[in-house]
Amino acid sequence: NYAKIDTARKKRTGYPEVIYGAGKTPEQISGIATALKKQGQPVLVTRVTPEKATKVQEKVSDLNYNSTAQVMIWEPQPATHIGEIAIVTAGTSDIQVAEEAAVTAELFGNQVTRIYDVGVAGIQRLFAKLNVIRQAKVIIVIAGMEGALVSVVGGLVDQPVIAVPTSIGYGSNLNGMTPLLGMLNSCSAGISVVNIDNGFGAAYNASMINHLASKEAAR
Amino acid sequence: NYAKIDTARKKRTGYPEVIYGAGKTPEQISGIATALKKQGQPVLVTRVTPEKATKVQEKVSDLNYNSTAQVMIWEPQPATHIGEIAIVTAGTSDIQVAEEAAVTAELFGNQVTRIYDVGVAGIQRLFAKLNVIRQAKVIIVIAGMEGALVSVVGGLVDQPVIAVPTSIGYGSNLNGMTPLLGMLNSCSAGISVVNIDNGFGAAYNASMINHLASKEAAR
Amino acid sequence: NYAKIDTARKKRTGYPEVIYGAGKTPEQISGIATALKKQGQPVLVTRVTPEKATKVQEKVSDLNYNSTAQVMIWEPQPATHIGEIAIVTAGTSDIQVAEEAAVTAELFGNQVTRIYDVGVAGIQRLFAKLNVIRQAKVIIVIAGMEGALVSVVGGLVDQPVIAVPTSIGYGSNLNGMTPLLGMLNSCSAGISVVNIDNGFGAAYNASMINHLASKEAAR
Amino acid sequence: NYAKIDTARKKRTGYPEVIYGAGKTPEQISGIATALKKQGQPVLVTRVTPEKATKVQEKVSDLNYNSTAQVMIWEPQPATHIGEIAIVTAGTSDIQVAEEAAVTAELFGNQVTRIYDVGVAGIQRLFAKLNVIRQAKVIIVIAGMEGALVSVVGGLVDQPVIAVPTSIGYGSNLNGMTPLLGMLNSCSAGISVVNIDNGFGAAYNASMINHLASKEAAR
Amino acid sequence: NYAKIDTARKKRTGYPEVIYGAGKTPEQISGIATALKKQGQPVLVTRVTPEKATKVQEKVSDLNYNSTAQVMIWEPQPATHIGEIAIVTAGTSDIQVAEEAAVTAELFGNQVTRIYDVGVAGIQRLFAKLNVIRQAKVIIVIAGMEGALVSVVGGLVDQPVIAVPTSIGYGSNLNGMTPLLGMLNSCSAGISVVNIDNGFGAAYNASMINHLASKEAAR
Amino acid sequence: NYAKIDTARKKRTGYPEVIYGAGKTPEQISGIATALKKQGQPVLVTRVTPEKATKVQEKVSDLNYNSTAQVMIWEPQPATHIGEIAIVTAGTSDIQVAEEAAVTAELFGNQVTRIYDVGVAGIQRLFAKLNVIRQAKVIIVIAGMEGALVSVVGGLVDQPVIAVPTSIGYGSNLNGMTPLLGMLNSCSAGISVVNIDNGFGAAYNASMINHLASKEAAR
Amino acid sequence: NYAKIDTARKKRTGYPEVIYGAGKTPEQISGIATALKKQGQPVLVTRVTPEKATKVQEKVSDLNYNSTAQVMIWEPQPATHIGEIAIVTAGTSDIQVAEEAAVTAELFGNQVTRIYDVGVAGIQRLFAKLNVIRQAKVIIVIAGMEGALVSVVGGLVDQPVIAVPTSIGYGSNLNGMTPLLGMLNSCSAGISVVNIDNGFGAAYNASMINHLASKEAAR
Amino acid sequence: NYAKIDTARKKRTGYPEVIYGAGKTPEQISGIATALKKQGQPVLVTRVTPEKATKVQEKVSDLNYNSTAQVMIWEPQPATHIGEIAIVTAGTSDIQVAEEAAVTAELFGNQVTRIYDVGVAGIQRLFAKLNVIRQAKVIIVIAGMEGALVSVVGGLVDQPVIAVPTSIGYGSNLNGMTPLLGMLNSCSAGISVVNIDNGFGAAYNASMINHLASKEAAR
Ligand SMILES: Nc1ncnc2c1ncn2[C@@H]1O[C@H](COP(=O)(O)O)[C@@H](O)[C@H]1O
Ligand SMILES: Nc1ncnc2c1ncn2[C@@H]1O[C@H](COP(=O)(O)O)[C@@H](O)[C@H]1O
Ligand SMILES: Nc1ncnc2c1ncn2[C@@H]1O[C@H](COP(=O)(O)O)[C@@H](O)[C@H]1O
Ligand SMILES: Nc1ncnc2c1ncn2[C@@H]1O[C@H](COP(=O)(O)O)[C@@H](O)[C@H]1O
Ligand SMILES: [Mg+2]
Ligand SMILES: [Mg+2]
Ligand SMILES: [Mg+2]
Ligand SMILES: [Mg+2]
Ligand SMILES: [Mg+2]
Ligand SMILES: [Mg+2]
Ligand SMILES: [Mg+2]
Ligand SMILES: [Mg+2]
Repeated sequence: NYAKIDTARKKRTGYPEVIYGAGKTPEQISGIATALKKQGQPVLVTRVTPEKATKVQEKVSDLNYNSTAQVMIWEPQPATHIGEIAIVTAGTSDIQVAEEAAVTAELFGNQVTRIYDVGVAGIQRLFAKLNVIRQAKVIIVIAGMEGALVSVVGGLVDQPVIAVPTSIGYGSNLNGMTPLLGMLNSCSAGISVVNIDNGFGAAYNASMINHLASKEAAR
Repeated sequence: NYAKIDTARKKRTGYPEVIYGAGKTPEQISGIATALKKQGQPVLVTRVTPEKATKVQEKVSDLNYNSTAQVMIWEPQPATHIGEIAIVTAGTSDIQVAEEAAVTAELFGNQVTRIYDVGVAGIQRLFAKLNVIRQAKVIIVIAGMEGALVSVVGGLVDQPVIAVPTSIGYGSNLNGMTPLLGMLNSCSAGISVVNIDNGFGAAYNASMINHLASKEAAR
Repeated sequence: NYAKIDTARKKRTGYPEVIYGAGKTPEQISGIATALKKQGQPVLVTRVTPEKATKVQEKVSDLNYNSTAQVMIWEPQPATHIGEIAIVTAGTSDIQVAEEAAVTAELFGNQVTRIYDVGVAGIQRLFAKLNVIRQAKVIIVIAGMEGALVSVVGGLVDQPVIAVPTSIGYGSNLNGMTPLLGMLNSCSAGISVVNIDNGFGAAYNASMINHLASKEAAR
Repeated sequence: NYAKIDTARKKRTGYPEVIYGAGKTPEQISGIATALKKQGQPVLVTRVTPEKATKVQEKVSDLNYNSTAQVMIWEPQPATHIGEIAIVTAGTSDIQVAEEAAVTAELFGNQVTRIYDVGVAGIQRLFAKLNVIRQAKVIIVIAGMEGALVSVVGGLVDQPVIAVPTSIGYGSNLNGMTPLLGMLNSCSAGISVVNIDNGFGAAYNASMINHLASKEAAR
Repeated sequence: NYAKIDTARKKRTGYPEVIYGAGKTPEQISGIATALKKQGQPVLVTRVTPEKATKVQEKVSDLNYNSTAQVMIWEPQPATHIGEIAIVTAGTSDIQVAEEAAVTAELFGNQVTRIYDVGVAGIQRLFAKLNVIRQAKVIIVIAGMEGALVSVVGGLVDQPVIAVPTSIGYGSNLNGMTPLLGMLNSCSAGISVVNIDNGFGAAYNASMINHLASKEAAR
Repeated sequence: NYAKIDTARKKRTGYPEVIYGAGKTPEQISGIATALKKQGQPVLVTRVTPEKATKVQEKVSDLNYNSTAQVMIWEPQPATHIGEIAIVTAGTSDIQVAEEAAVTAELFGNQVTRIYDVGVAGIQRLFAKLNVIRQAKVIIVIAGMEGALVSVVGGLVDQPVIAVPTSIGYGSNLNGMTPLLGMLNSCSAGISVVNIDNGFGAAYNASMINHLASKEAAR
Repeated sequence: NYAKIDTARKKRTGYPEVIYGAGKTPEQISGIATALKKQGQPVLVTRVTPEKATKVQEKVSDLNYNSTAQVMIWEPQPATHIGEIAIVTAGTSDIQVAEEAAVTAELFGNQVTRIYDVGVAGIQRLFAKLNVIRQAKVIIVIAGMEGALVSVVGGLVDQPVIAVPTSIGYGSNLNGMTPLLGMLNSCSAGISVVNIDNGFGAAYNASMINHLASKEAAR
Repeated sequence: NYAKIDTARKKRTGYPEVIYGAGKTPEQISGIATALKKQGQPVLVTRVTPEKATKVQEKVSDLNYNSTAQVMIWEPQPATHIGEIAIVTAGTSDIQVAEEAAVTAELFGNQVTRIYDVGVAGIQRLFAKLNVIRQAKVIIVIAGMEGALVSVVGGLVDQPVIAVPTSIGYGSNLNGMTPLLGMLNSCSAGISVVNIDNGFGAAYNASMINHLASKEAAR
């Protein structure tokens, strides 16, 4: 009644509907999750606080909660994972967003490599990991403050880079608007941007690209 | 002297350095173009007004000018083009940005399908072209005003969508900031965004994705 | 003393004064409500949290509280309702604003049809309801994130559309400024906009239009 | 080729496609106008400078130009006009926007009453015209600077008010953003808002409301 | 140590230093208040919450707290009051700011007339009070939402008007930025503006003007 | 026809209507000026470029043009001038705004003292003029860049200070928004603010205050 | 794992890595602090609330907490301190930021002179301290509200001035954006700016300059 | 008359008054320049277009014009230059701002090393010059677009870095606000920022630091 579940989404766009948890009550989340489960669709709920997760689990006890990524998941991970998505963060504080991305990407059948805390204040940390990063098919770069890591990575690789600004920072950081604007104006080419803290969205994009490559290879 | 040409860029990122023409004098453009040509690199100059193009051609006469896309190009197009990139615009006024994208994509060896003026004010125009759009590997959607076309396309396809906001509009459009913000907040997943009017950047991204798929297939 | 109740408003503008509850103490609300009741005027208080409602009811016990719409009401609904106002939302999270609109419209003597959660991420949900929507006299469209649903509806109907941006979203959504700007720049014509989350204002406008049509018909 | 004319728009939304002239070349305008004429549809082009109008007329000589409203029109005005739309401006400088609205409303078959230069700096000018304004079915209020006239009119009438902020002002007027924001936050109810300088959009809305009333009366 | 009390301020600017309470601890407030009292200077502390006031009174028990105005005061009011300052608000919710202004003005030796809740949504309420308002020497107008009351009053009187925007409103009100910008762009002349919610600042200005007139008369 | 001249304004607010020249054609300006002259009212037109002034003078030859202040004036200055208004600027570039203020103040019967180019980068220049400034009844401070001069003057005087931010500056000055915001947040009390570059408005306010004092003295 | 400690930073930039405490859990802080201690590096953690400090000390008991500056420190202060850095604040409320700067500067081996509460509302307080300020090698000026103190100091001294805007203020202060913009547009030369409330950053810069001078002297 | 030349500035702040040319007429510039010359002070005028320079030279023929830096200079360069300031730009388009900085620094007696077009899109260009950069006493980094070069340099050096954002970019670059905000939020320490395009201000700061070091060494 409060929701029209888009059950055709998987057919249409390749992925099932995902529940954005932030604006929903535990009742709404468990209602939609139950409906999806009945249809045999995997369930992913993003932006769930620990308190809300507990209330949801009272109704749908087999929804697993990942407290770092703040997501709930139902259905075993896919057996095989294709390609490789590198998830790179500038700092320690960006890890929550990175894990939202990582869990989403894994659920959608991608292999994930995590490279955290390699921001440009100590750029040698990035160079030490460049070989690993260059092996990935797609790269997600996650950074707050001024977001400069995105431009540096973009200038060093030949894969698509998906940039995620985070709300980490203070004052004129403007809750992430500053890195968002910076990433959109990057002097490096090959970068596209999603909303502030949108780890889910970045992983969704990266997964689409990864599967496209894999589908082509399978022809 | 005024420029350190990044001749290793092709090796590093897969594409040669492209000259951003807007902030440069005709002398600077022709100087950099000549240097690139000497190394046998293809030359692409973006954001060149007709007047500036004429002055550049006085010095480098074989740089071709495309006045719709406002770009200059040297080197025959690649013999073969892979994949297919669909370039979709909301209105007639978005065509300059679309052609910047189209020319860039073609120069980088991609096939391009143009689907112009199918904005949501008359959404049946989009549905009439949906089959064509769904055949592409990657989709670029270009829109000004409020940019709603991006969300509609994003909800209907299973390919990556790269969104380009344009500065077409007036008043509270704020020179394209309104569609930029709208696209970043799209309710559809699978969308990433580049800077306002950045047709070049969108094509660069789309080409990277397209080649990735093609490389995988070639393994 | 703290309020000069505008008792002539019904005569002047067709509707009695409505109490905006957000900035008022329970004492102020009950004081104004009592004064309005004494004059036989219907009472509508908007933006009342459950806690505040309880305190108000301690003083004016017959003010009914609707916790979804967060409004308080006194006086039976009008016996007959004219015309039909369609209230359309993009998502589940927009329902609070929608119910503020629905309750207001009903109190003002309009029939209301609710069509919730038909956002453009799954546009077939909207098309499935298009016949119902087209039967209304006036359409209210409520959406957060980027607000694209407004443009899509506006391009499909020949009734006035009143657009309500909501503060649902995060990051560069800027608490609803992004859909507000988007709706004002819609590529579809026939759309006018009210403030963020202003379900009451949208219903007030829609009711005015509906009654105008009904008055003309009654001549 | 550059445009997909939305010839079904009249059927779908009640009004034919209107050409937004600001972002188009004279060639594009005359091309679209000719196509619309061939189908027997009335032609309205908005935002045309005198210079551009002259160039368009070289190709489509019977497109009439109204230099105050900056619009081009083809097709005789409808024989009969229904209802009455009051167009009220705060100052002399708002007249261009007002005439864009007036010409649009007349072309769409409405009667128009013009009440110009009655801003709140001399509020007695408004009261002197209140009887005239109250006879209209719908009221369009157009104001720049801080846009206060909208709230004053809104508090005095029982018709729907469509508010148009204009870019008249300087400094912290921010090219019309200040009256736009002011109108959206009006303390009077019954007001909805369109984009800055959007006289056309206001008239389109007002006409829809006016025809709705007239259609109801005709049943 | 944490404060250099500006004990010469009364001599230099005509009024003693006033303590802005919002950013200070109870210890800092009571320390500065005690120092001022020792010098026989009157004490005014603004922006004090009830909780903080209680803690301050534990140390300086004779500082009186006014919970409507949220200020603390020491020293009997001046025996005689000159002139008259009218304090006009648009709504009930603006009263806290109005009382901050009123208490300040009275402490500085002015007579104050309060005219509350006469906003333009019911403009007859203002006209009913116009005679009273016109008797004042200086007028303070306080309004939130869009702040239109300021322009209406400004067009009707021949006294200086000091405008105070308040943070009352929601959504695109932007915490008072909308009425602030509106007041700065008023179409009426004779208006100057102070910061959002700055009742103290308005009263300070009005008092200066009032005393200037009174000093001139005393020559 | 295009204007309803507010001939009662002098009676109502103490000053006749002033013509804001920026948004008007030479025809409109000369039409309104002629109408005012016929009624024996003084004429002041602000924001007139030299080119426009020449065209206006072709129709109304006795309107004098002051090219520094960019205003046109008709009617001899009042024979006697009361009080004294000090007009203080931070830099040389603020002089156009200062002269708009000075000419307005003189036309309205005030004595004016000009103290230009005494900004805080060389604060000794201000101290050298402090005695002169302190003799005035009201002080207008005009500054661009960051506008700090206002706070310094405000802390040194016991008269009302009217602050005018100017659009002098670049980059993050944001066309005067930076000094506007700075002045509204001044740490000194006794300051009120008008719109960016609004020399006319500042003089109007100062004149009102000055005449109020003078009227009191005359009782 | 969650952090790649940049142990080479001291060698590269002259100072060890500093822990930004605001976005980190107590576990992360104590983990990084322990690692740094093991390498014999001094530990500085900024932006630590008292509650978080207590939790960190449960794990690393010898990390000292300074509750005014809200920082944690390990390692005795350097035996000798060079040069002198003057830290000047406008008000009492800026002291937290000032102490963050002072503690950082002392830890990095600088002598610090504190001059607090000398804002321009009472400018004689600044002049009384000018001799002391002029003896310093570098000056840090910290101010909220409009930040005018920076321009005044900058015009009086021949040392580099590092300006720190604070978030002290309300309404159109916009959480410190107003003094930030003001300081960037200062009419005085010799001023550079760091982020809002960034006392640490200012001290880091000042220390670099101070040591540069001292190193030169040591050659 | 229009200017109070601050002839004591050299004594007070170490450097003579510099003329900001953008807002001044050729007459004003030549007047102030002549007055400074008479006192034997060096003359520097910034932001002078070629056309304005020609007009100024008609009156003060020995003012030399540097068309790349857009500055005018009088007085031979100082015989000896101390220290070394490195001026680093991200792109070719930043050179005008860089030359304004370079010429200012040289005039003030500093040695300057220019390292242009080493932006992070091709970061190997920066590493190739790192040895040269590390030899400087102070580093000025100039960048437009997103300004990421500043953070990279800041993380690699142990000298003070002064960051200059430029207005090079388009769309959401917002005329340089994006790199300005980015630089203020840099994840590297040791960076302070001046206004957009403010090459002069950066050089002034760098020179102060350089001379401070040199003075210390001379003791
Ligand atoms: N963290 C997230 N950020 C952005 N979008 C999300 C997120 N999680 C889920 N979504 C999307 O939000 C939509 C859910 O909308 P709703 O109908 O309101 O539940 C789905 O289409 C998801 O793809
Ligand atoms: N239209 C464009 N929009 C954004 N970036 C561009 C555009 N054209 C070229 N570029 C990029 O701008 C950089 C050129 O910078 P520059 O050294 O200033 O020429 C290259 O790395 C290009 O990839
Ligand atoms: N949710 C709402 N949003 C906007 N305006 C409202 C709302 N609820 C009531 N109002 C209007 O606010 C006014 C009440 O103002 P007040 O005198 O402050 O109670 C009335 O004129 C109502 O029409
Ligand atoms: N420079 C100015 N700045 C602000 N308002 C002005 C200025 N000059 C004239 N005005 C006011 O603008 C109004 C003229 O509006 P209008 O009817 O459009 O001519 C009058 O009320 C004047 O008081
Ligand atoms: Mg780290
Ligand atoms: Mg079209
Ligand atoms: Mg949904
Ligand atoms: Mg007028
Ligand atoms: Mg009320
Ligand atoms: Mg000067
Ligand atoms: Mg103090
Ligand atoms: Mg380059």
